[in-house]
Amino acid sequence: MFERLDTPRLILDSARLTRNADRMRARCADLGVILRPHLKTAKSANVARIAAGGERGPITVSTLAEAEYFAAAGWRDILYSTAIAPGKLARAHRIQHETGARLLFVVDDHDAAALIGQTAAALDARFGVLIEVDCGEHRSGVEPASPALLKVADAIASAAPYLELMGIMSHAGHSYAFAESEPVRALAEIERFAAVSSADYLRERGYPCPIVSIGSTPTVLFAGHLEGVTEVRAGIYLFHDLAQLSRGVCTQEDIAVSVLATVIGHQRNGPSLILDAGALALSKDVGANRFLPEAGYGLVCDAVTLEPLGSLAVTVVHQEHGNVPVPDDSWFARLPIGSLVRILPNHACLTCAAYTSYDVLQAGEIIAKWPRTGGW
Amino acid sequence: MFERLDTPRLILDSARLTRNADRMRARCADLGVILRPHLKTAKSANVARIAAGGERGPITVSTLAEAEYFAAAGWRDILYSTAIAPGKLARAHRIQHETGARLLFVVDDHDAAALIGQTAAALDARFGVLIEVDCGEHRSGVEPASPALLKVADAIASAAPYLELMGIMSHAGHSYAFAESEPVRALAEIERFAAVSSADYLRERGYPCPIVSIGSTPTVLFAGHLEGVTEVRAGIYLFHDLAQLSRGVCTQEDIAVSVLATVIGHQRNGPSLILDAGALALSKDVGANRFLPEAGYGLVCDAVTLEPLGSLAVTVVHQEHGNVPVPDDSWFARLPIGSLVRILPNHACLTCAAYTSYDVLQAGEIIAKWPRTGGW
Repeated sequence: MFERLDTPRLILDSARLTRNADRMRARCADLGVILRPHLKTAKSANVARIAAGGERGPITVSTLAEAEYFAAAGWRDILYSTAIAPGKLARAHRIQHETGARLLFVVDDHDAAALIGQTAAALDARFGVLIEVDCGEHRSGVEPASPALLKVADAIASAAPYLELMGIMSHAGHSYAFAESEPVRALAEIERFAAVSSADYLRERGYPCPIVSIGSTPTVLFAGHLEGVTEVRAGIYLFHDLAQLSRGVCTQEDIAVSVLATVIGHQRNGPSLILDAGALALSKDVGANRFLPEAGYGLVCDAVTLEPLGSLAVTVVHQEHGNVPVPDDSWFARLPIGSLVRILPNHACLTCAAYTSYDVLQAGEIIAKWPRTGGW
Repeated sequence: MFERLDTPRLILDSARLTRNADRMRARCADLGVILRPHLKTAKSANVARIAAGGERGPITVSTLAEAEYFAAAGWRDILYSTAIAPGKLARAHRIQHETGARLLFVVDDHDAAALIGQTAAALDARFGVLIEVDCGEHRSGVEPASPALLKVADAIASAAPYLELMGIMSHAGHSYAFAESEPVRALAEIERFAAVSSADYLRERGYPCPIVSIGSTPTVLFAGHLEGVTEVRAGIYLFHDLAQLSRGVCTQEDIAVSVLATVIGHQRNGPSLILDAGALALSKDVGANRFLPEAGYGLVCDAVTLEPLGSLAVTVVHQEHGNVPVPDDSWFARLPIGSLVRILPNHACLTCAAYTSYDVLQAGEIIAKWPRTGGW
């Protein structure tokens, strides 16, 4: 089914993608929250439409390049979830102006809010803003329900009408430190509480905060309830990967992306197979190895069935070479030079970033090539 | 000097590049060998011309996308140094046919040589071939000066006129296991001897082997002599990086590429700076950390002078966030939100791969944007 494809190549299983998307939409309906899928993983309009069941709903992005791409493709409600640098506002303004999309920014510092407000005023631009609160990961965000939070809200309010405070966001990135559902469920509650208590804190002080946004795939899937939350951000659930598998977030049959590679060498001193998928084709992310040490840089699977080939994994990567130790020489006959394999990635966000398109697999055939955006 | 640039952005210092290029050409002249620069790092025609002092000389590439790009830009002698998969010959043939370039392939297996010969015959295509010998890294290559080597040569000869045996190549990738020059010099001699003895072995059996190709930046720079070698492949010397610095291969002033990033947050719980350069902008390669553990995901430098800022480094990366611990809060005043820094990369080959162009810095000004190719 892959005869005419050059390798390495990024394969997207359309049935798995649709199932993952449907499952998350059902989950969000059960939880009573809006799904604002994070498209930093997929970076694809085709995937974004499937995520929303065919619609162009609210989305999350991580770069202005993604914002530009989705706005040009007709999306209108775009949360840029990386803290915005003042120097990026002119481009953001242009995106809004040219497409009619509305961008939502994230701020977590009162000086930054003031600076962004001044820049927006100088541009005569209007932006919605969420305040990020830190629910324990300490990557970014202010202390929840604190005077520091209020100071940021006041700074945003002072920049009216150029900035409009739309609510609160939090992100429990530290949920990836666990491989069991119980601590993740606890973190989901911490993430929820940080956001909801912060929104309530600001509402009591006169700021309405219509949006209360939380999320990561694990916390959304394992949360007990999401009372007070209005929307969730999750992205990796669309594709899943070995990092999610290793944390019990998905099964192997949920992983929708894989790298098609060719056996280009048999190293008898080893013995090992050499693949034409190395550090660039797979990325050097080994995030699955914490809880799945045998994952290496990716598990090697049958090209057709995507069933793992024994416990073969890419254990060493060079720029364009992937080295796969095999138990014995019999694997050389089983996988002669020129044969194809597929590799399940550690971290789909990083692996996919090396490719400009997906080869879409449906019912055993490549039916389409979907472009993806990249860069900044 | 960077006011109008969005970040993250890849900056290439033209004076450093030219100095690195000149130094390697002088070194190769001293050694009496042809320089066939490996352009898997730079992937840029502008850089390739500087590498050859303005000419279009022989080059090395790691993907057919690079071969296609350089052939279209007028290069004629292109070594594709990753073992070729039979499925890639049709495209290689098309590149030769459409551009007049000559591609040289690498083979290390007699069955693969036979298969490639059959495929070339079916296409009525002509390709030059080098046999790769394994000088100890055990990534790829046959045993030097061995019956196995002869078997590969015979298989290539049997595929005449479609394949033409042009010689031998070896690559001492394990030279990166050392941070002192003495073991690297020893490996350079092992690499040289593996290639030269293999060429002699085949010449005694009637195969002329006009090309004897070795190389990596460290072995070319540290080799005592290269008697019998006709050409060297090296690539990272054009840019250098923290991995080279950590191994004593270059000084900090030789590193010609850096990532321009913006401070987008101040995390008081730390304390740390948050940059808009994370796993995608820097890559997750931490190859410098073996001998320079403080390198993290990259050293943080003054944006203008490229002098290190204390010992600041990016220690945690998320997709679009880089976290830089600072000793105390005084750094927040020194680097307010919105300020620029530059980051020296661990491994230039992987960092550059995320970008589609270089912003070229000369005498304190950005003077050009040079495109780079990517993908496969």
